[in-house]
Amino acid sequence: MLNLEFKEKLIAAVSKSNVEDSKASRLVYSYDATPNFQALPDAVVSPRCAEEVSQVVKLCGHYKVPIVPRGSGTNLCAGTCPTEGGIVLLFKHMNKILEIDEENLTVTVQPGAVTLDIINEVEARGLFYPPDPSSMKISTIGGNINENSGGLRGLKYGVTRDYVMALEIVLANGDIIRTGGKLAKDVAGYDFTRLFVGSEGTLGILTEATLKLIPMPETKSTMLALYQDLEAAARSVSKIIANKIIPATLEFLDQPTLKVVEDFARIGLPTDVKAVLLIEQDGPADLVSGDMLKMANICKQEQAVSVQLAKTNEEAEALRTARRSALSALARLKPTTILEDATVPRSEIARMVTAINEIGERFNVQICTFGHAGDGNLHPTVATDARDHDEMERVEKAFAAIFEKAIELGGTITGEHGVGEMKAPYLELKLGAAGISAMKAVKDALDPANIMNPGKVFAKDTRKRVVVSS
Amino acid sequence: MLNLEFKEKLIAAVSKSNVEDSKASRLVYSYDATPNFQALPDAVVSPRCAEEVSQVVKLCGHYKVPIVPRGSGTNLCAGTCPTEGGIVLLFKHMNKILEIDEENLTVTVQPGAVTLDIINEVEARGLFYPPDPSSMKISTIGGNINENSGGLRGLKYGVTRDYVMALEIVLANGDIIRTGGKLAKDVAGYDFTRLFVGSEGTLGILTEATLKLIPMPETKSTMLALYQDLEAAARSVSKIIANKIIPATLEFLDQPTLKVVEDFARIGLPTDVKAVLLIEQDGPADLVSGDMLKMANICKQEQAVSVQLAKTNEEAEALRTARRSALSALARLKPTTILEDATVPRSEIARMVTAINEIGERFNVQICTFGHAGDGNLHPTVATDARDHDEMERVEKAFAAIFEKAIELGGTITGEHGVGEMKAPYLELKLGAAGISAMKAVKDALDPANIMNPGKVFAKDTRKRVVVSS
Repeated sequence: MLNLEFKEKLIAAVSKSNVEDSKASRLVYSYDATPNFQALPDAVVSPRCAEEVSQVVKLCGHYKVPIVPRGSGTNLCAGTCPTEGGIVLLFKHMNKILEIDEENLTVTVQPGAVTLDIINEVEARGLFYPPDPSSMKISTIGGNINENSGGLRGLKYGVTRDYVMALEIVLANGDIIRTGGKLAKDVAGYDFTRLFVGSEGTLGILTEATLKLIPMPETKSTMLALYQDLEAAARSVSKIIANKIIPATLEFLDQPTLKVVEDFARIGLPTDVKAVLLIEQDGPADLVSGDMLKMANICKQEQAVSVQLAKTNEEAEALRTARRSALSALARLKPTTILEDATVPRSEIARMVTAINEIGERFNVQICTFGHAGDGNLHPTVATDARDHDEMERVEKAFAAIFEKAIELGGTITGEHGVGEMKAPYLELKLGAAGISAMKAVKDALDPANIMNPGKVFAKDTRKRVVVSS
Repeated sequence: MLNLEFKEKLIAAVSKSNVEDSKASRLVYSYDATPNFQALPDAVVSPRCAEEVSQVVKLCGHYKVPIVPRGSGTNLCAGTCPTEGGIVLLFKHMNKILEIDEENLTVTVQPGAVTLDIINEVEARGLFYPPDPSSMKISTIGGNINENSGGLRGLKYGVTRDYVMALEIVLANGDIIRTGGKLAKDVAGYDFTRLFVGSEGTLGILTEATLKLIPMPETKSTMLALYQDLEAAARSVSKIIANKIIPATLEFLDQPTLKVVEDFARIGLPTDVKAVLLIEQDGPADLVSGDMLKMANICKQEQAVSVQLAKTNEEAEALRTARRSALSALARLKPTTILEDATVPRSEIARMVTAINEIGERFNVQICTFGHAGDGNLHPTVATDARDHDEMERVEKAFAAIFEKAIELGGTITGEHGVGEMKAPYLELKLGAAGISAMKAVKDALDPANIMNPGKVFAKDTRKRVVVSS
């Protein structure tokens, strides 16, 4: 419950209509896309500008109230669940595309702008913003930056971090700072731009961002390679890269995922094969056709049973959309869907896929695996039911085993989804106690009262868990 | 002078031959490539592995002795001058290229490896490490990472930061941590990899790095565009980018620089024009020839008096080498050369070049300007004599005016050279008091005893100065 004095000051700062604390609005923002995490905030606050954010942050600091910035809540790590109560900060008023600068190839946005709207706006000018998380239709750019979102084009084009040039940030003390600029080169002080990208709202509140754009590739081509052997598909991935071809997209779907996606999307995906690679290249026409031919040959050498080029743009778009719908399709199977993103060096993809299947068998859990094979970022996914405590226990153990295997192979516990609350207990696997302690020191330095999205990234205890049983 | 007990412990840690404290060795490491900064260290220490670095750091922590990591000392910001005494840490034993991983397209190196050696090794395998600071023949990769070095290929390929995937770092408390991995995607915790890149040795000691490689571009083409009008050259730069062409290199040299470089390199550079653009594109042959043609036309539309394509690889290499030799060439003119790297959004290049010339006239200082026009990173340079106190005073004022103008145009005080001690008093121009205070909090959190390269990045006082008169 909101302290009355605090509430009055909040209203004075952002106006009455922008402070909601009815049971209904609090319930709406008590969870995000992550299964099995829920906690009621005390209020939902919608500031209209950085100055208002600063006032809200100062009030939260004074009254020691947690503050959880939230876009569309599409994250899968419980990053925006208000675990410790406090205020959920919405950016519904701060959702503008402020400027597209065609001379400097940048776009400047407010955090609440929807990713796909930005992509469409810049593409209309012949420019390209590559990061394309699967949730981009509804995700906000602020959320993407806070989670350092990846996507299907990460292999060739990198992730959100690689496109953030400048930020406006409200710090825990209410100070408004600006990092970076429309500058290809800037080494004035520490790289705070990238420190804040992926910091999950635990270091400050993002209020504006300038993103780098690149010229739109001239053409794009799409193909499907079908396999009766999982490892052959994985070997094709390694061999394509080792042959010095960097495709725009190199996605992997195993048979269980294929079946579910086809059942959802109904575009004629093959369901009688063990694995599919969805491969795309973009760029100048000659280069694209040359690369597609080389990649088709590599896939055939590695025992692909069929390699089919998409004949039309519509067919290619249908394939991409089907791939992006994998999570939605899997979510139809059972009440609870747990999607992970253990990531390994791309040379280890075959070993990781094999290990995931073995782990699924060992714990008697059916795991569907799909993901960004080209960058080693896999999404092993389990459709389950949170009410089935016995199965949930096994799912939890299976994912713990997957994380350990990923680390053993030189990988990480999360490639693009973030740590949030869900993966905080596993962070030490990747960073070690010394690494966590150094990061915690930075958190304490910038947010000494721990009001910025508390309970995220750093675990309160070391109990390993993927899900919290309700 | 070294405390005897401390010295004995240092010797126990790294062996006698790796602790030098003769006057001669201390003198050798009392300065770097930055004019007019000099301070004697107490000793020069050469560890052989991360474990030894950790022991040295722990000893420095215990005895409160500053520690200054140093590669070849080619930096231009007094970043490796042992301003507060203490230990200069050399990496002459830690200079190996440890692994080239052709499956994951990475190279793993020790900090003392020379940049050009790495570039040559990976190019022999058909791979490409793009960052190419002008000092790359002698600079070490550890220095490049600590300064986040740029280079001629920054416009298209980015800077050192964009190629660092993983680091091994010894923290101020002696802990050895590892960040990142051979991973295109990794969001496990804060982006410490990029926090440490460009941190100038003030947060920890780098002991190993894994760098991203990309496939070697198929071909490369080089041309020179000559202008009788500085602003026409600058306009060509903006127009090339606005036409959605991103060349590999887009370098600018003004007439005074051209004359000096030609006098040094003697390759037949034109010296009767006001400015030259050195333009390169790389990639597939068709793409390159198409882009070169488009860029040549743009230059002609913008009143280039001549556009010449390099006819042979040798001719192209001679042009690049001449450009890289600009600093050496300018350094022959007078005893003291001060080279700066104020950087602006590329749309502001014309305004910045004009402002630099006006500032030169106002303070009666001859400024030669060259640099990476495509990314807005200019190197206004003054050949002077540190003993001429009157002129030095005017030089100082001129550079202060240049920094202020760069900031006014949305730029920064340093694009690729770093802050070090030299530019620390100007950092507030870019970051504001709140920005500096937040960065200082991170520094204090990770290095509470302030032993890591103290006196760098953060100014002790706010007296603005480019050079310290000796």
